[in-house]
Amino acid sequence: MNVLTLDDIEALAIGAWILGTGGGGSPHHALLSMRRLYQDGVQVALIDPQDLADDDQIAVVSTQGAPLVTQERLTDSRAAARAVEAMEGHLGRRFRAVMGIEVGGANALQPVMAAAHLGIPVVDADAMGRAYPEAQMTTFAVGNLHPAPLTSVDPRGNEVIVSAAASWEWMERISRRICTEFGSTAATCKAPRSGYEVKRWAVPNTTSRAIRLGKAVMEANRTHADPIAAILESEAGKRLFTGKIAEVERRTTGGFLLGRTVLEGLGQERGERLEIAFQNEWVVAWRAGSAIASTPDLICLLDSDTGEAIGTEAVRYGQRATVIALPAPALFLTPEGLNRVGPAAFGYDIPFKSVFGHEAHRS
Amino acid sequence: MNVLTLDDIEALAIGAWILGTGGGGSPHHALLSMRRLYQDGVQVALIDPQDLADDDQIAVVSTQGAPLVTQERLTDSRAAARAVEAMEGHLGRRFRAVMGIEVGGANALQPVMAAAHLGIPVVDADAMGRAYPEAQMTTFAVGNLHPAPLTSVDPRGNEVIVSAAASWEWMERISRRICTEFGSTAATCKAPRSGYEVKRWAVPNTTSRAIRLGKAVMEANRTHADPIAAILESEAGKRLFTGKIAEVERRTTGGFLLGRTVLEGLGQERGERLEIAFQNEWVVAWRAGSAIASTPDLICLLDSDTGEAIGTEAVRYGQRATVIALPAPALFLTPEGLNRVGPAAFGYDIPFKSVFGHEAHRS
Repeated sequence: MNVLTLDDIEALAIGAWILGTGGGGSPHHALLSMRRLYQDGVQVALIDPQDLADDDQIAVVSTQGAPLVTQERLTDSRAAARAVEAMEGHLGRRFRAVMGIEVGGANALQPVMAAAHLGIPVVDADAMGRAYPEAQMTTFAVGNLHPAPLTSVDPRGNEVIVSAAASWEWMERISRRICTEFGSTAATCKAPRSGYEVKRWAVPNTTSRAIRLGKAVMEANRTHADPIAAILESEAGKRLFTGKIAEVERRTTGGFLLGRTVLEGLGQERGERLEIAFQNEWVVAWRAGSAIASTPDLICLLDSDTGEAIGTEAVRYGQRATVIALPAPALFLTPEGLNRVGPAAFGYDIPFKSVFGHEAHRS
Repeated sequence: MNVLTLDDIEALAIGAWILGTGGGGSPHHALLSMRRLYQDGVQVALIDPQDLADDDQIAVVSTQGAPLVTQERLTDSRAAARAVEAMEGHLGRRFRAVMGIEVGGANALQPVMAAAHLGIPVVDADAMGRAYPEAQMTTFAVGNLHPAPLTSVDPRGNEVIVSAAASWEWMERISRRICTEFGSTAATCKAPRSGYEVKRWAVPNTTSRAIRLGKAVMEANRTHADPIAAILESEAGKRLFTGKIAEVERRTTGGFLLGRTVLEGLGQERGERLEIAFQNEWVVAWRAGSAIASTPDLICLLDSDTGEAIGTEAVRYGQRATVIALPAPALFLTPEGLNRVGPAAFGYDIPFKSVFGHEAHRS
C-alpha cells in the first residue's frame, strides 16, 4: 500500500483520459475536486489487489451517464462516497477498500474521490482496463459474477438500490433508466466484490498503469521529447495513423454518443484516409475499406503535439491527431470476453483480429 | 378483525371497479387469482384501522402501470407479496398488516393477494378512496408523510428499492421510470406507514365500503331492481346524466391513457350532451359548456343496465351509460388536498365546486 501524491493523481488524469479510448468523459472536473481535497490535507492510499484477503469486501464505483452531461455538470466528490455509503447501509457492513469499474476517463478518479471521503484505500485494478459504455462490458460480467446489487444517487438526495437483476443486461437497462431520470448522470456503487473475486476477475494494476502512462506524457512534454513515442514505449503500443481531422459526425441517441470521424493522412500516411466509428468510445478503425483495429484492442486518438487524448465528444475539424492501439486485457480476448466486448457486441459483423497478435494475451 | 369470504371478494371487485372512476384497471384478473387461492383454502382477514396499535408497521401495496398493459398481462398474486418481502428485507423487520394505496380498480385486490401469501391481515383503508394516476395523489402526500422507501419488482426477478426521494414528485418520476422499464407494470410496496399514520391520514373503511357497494349491485341484479338506484342509495351519490356513448377519443402518452368521451342524452336528458375528459380516470365532466363535476369528487360511468363500471380503456360507441358522482374523501377537500388532486393538478384552470356542497366534507 502506498500513498498517492497529488502528482500521481495529475498523471492518473492524463493516463486515464488516454485509456478512455475517446470515452469515459474527461477527468478534468474530478481532478479539480481532488486538487481541492489534497489542499485540505486529504491523502489517498493505493492497495495492490494481491494484498487483499479473499474475504475482504470491495466497493466498485462509477459515475454513470452521458459524457456530454458530465462535461456540463460539476463533479461532486461526495456523491461518489454517498453511493458507497448507500451500499453499506443496504448490506449492513463496511467496505475494506474501493475500486473503479473503469480506469478509462473520469471514472479512474471516481474511487479516488470516494476513498478521500471514506478514509479507505483504492484498489489498483478495474474491470475494463479502458472505458466501455455499458455495465455488462466488464471482466466481472465475463466471469459471470452477480450483477446486483447496485446503488445510484443524485445530488438532490434521491437514492435507488437495484437489489436484484435478472441478468447483466437487465441491470444495465434498469440502472440506465434511473440515471436518465436523474438527468443523465448518477454516482453508482456497483455489485460489491470479494477480495478473491477482485484477484481472480479484475484487470490488475490499471491505476498504476494509468499513472505511469500519464507520467510518460508529462515527462516527454517537460523535456520536449515526442510524447507519442513515449506512450508507445511505456505501454507496448502501436502507431496506426497520423493525420488531420477532416470529418466528424456525431449524434446523441438513448444516452449514447454515436458517430464517426475521418482523418486525412500526414507524413508517411499522406494521401490516405482513416475512418473511426465511435459509440461513446472508438470502436472500429478502417483504412482503405478494411478494419485495421477494433474493440477490445484500445484505439486511442491523441493530440500529435502533446500526446493528450482527444475525446469523441470533443474531436473537431482540423485537429492534428495520431491514432494508436494499446493491448486489450487478456480476459476480453477469451470467447466469453469477445462475446461481451468484441465488434459484434457493438453491431459490427467483422471478426476480431488483434493489432498485437498473440502478444495481446498479456493484460 | 373479520375473515373475508369469497363472496366479499367478488363484491369487492365490483365495488372497487366503480370506485376506480374509470381507471385503476379492471380487477378481473386479480379476482381470478383470488378465486384460485380461496379454492386452495386460503383465507384473508380484514382489520379495522382503529384496531391497529400506533407503532404497528403497515405495508402499502399497489400494482403500478398502464391499465391497458395490466389488461393484457395476467396477474401474478405472488408478485404483490414479493414486493412486501423486498421491503421487509430492506427494513429488516416484518409487517403487522398490509393495505392498498388505492381502493379503486385492480389495486383494491392487491393487498388481498399479498395478504393471502404473507398470512397477515388487510387493513380496511386506503390512501385515495378511489383511483388516481400518480403517487403524490394520496392522502399520505396530503399529510406530507415521507415518500420513501419504495420497492418495485417484476416477474423476471428484477427488484429495485427507491431508498430515498427528494419529494413525492421525484418518487413518482423515479418509480414510473422503473415501471416503464419493467414493461409498464410493476408490483410495488410503497413507503411503510405506522398504525398511527394510517389512523391519522388514511381514508378509513374503504375496503368494506367497496364490498358494500358491490353487494348492492349484486343484490339489485339478483332481484331485478335498478342497480344505479341501489348504488346511489348505498353511497349517497348523485345521478348526473343518462345517455349513450356518442364519441370516444383515446391516446396513450408517457404511460398514461388520455382522452374524452361524449354522451348523448336519453330519457330526461334527451337532446343534451355530456362530455367527460379522462387522464386514466374521469377527471372533469362538462354540460352545455360548464364543468358540472370534477376531481376529487368521484365521477363514475356505469352500465345503465347492470350498474357495473365502464373503464376509460374500454368505453366504446353505443354503450348505454349513466354518469354519477360520489363524495370525495374529506382530506382531498382541504387546500393541500385540492393542491394535490383538484382540477388544477390535472391541468384544468377551473375552481373545484363539489357536486355535494358541504356534505362532501364527510369521507
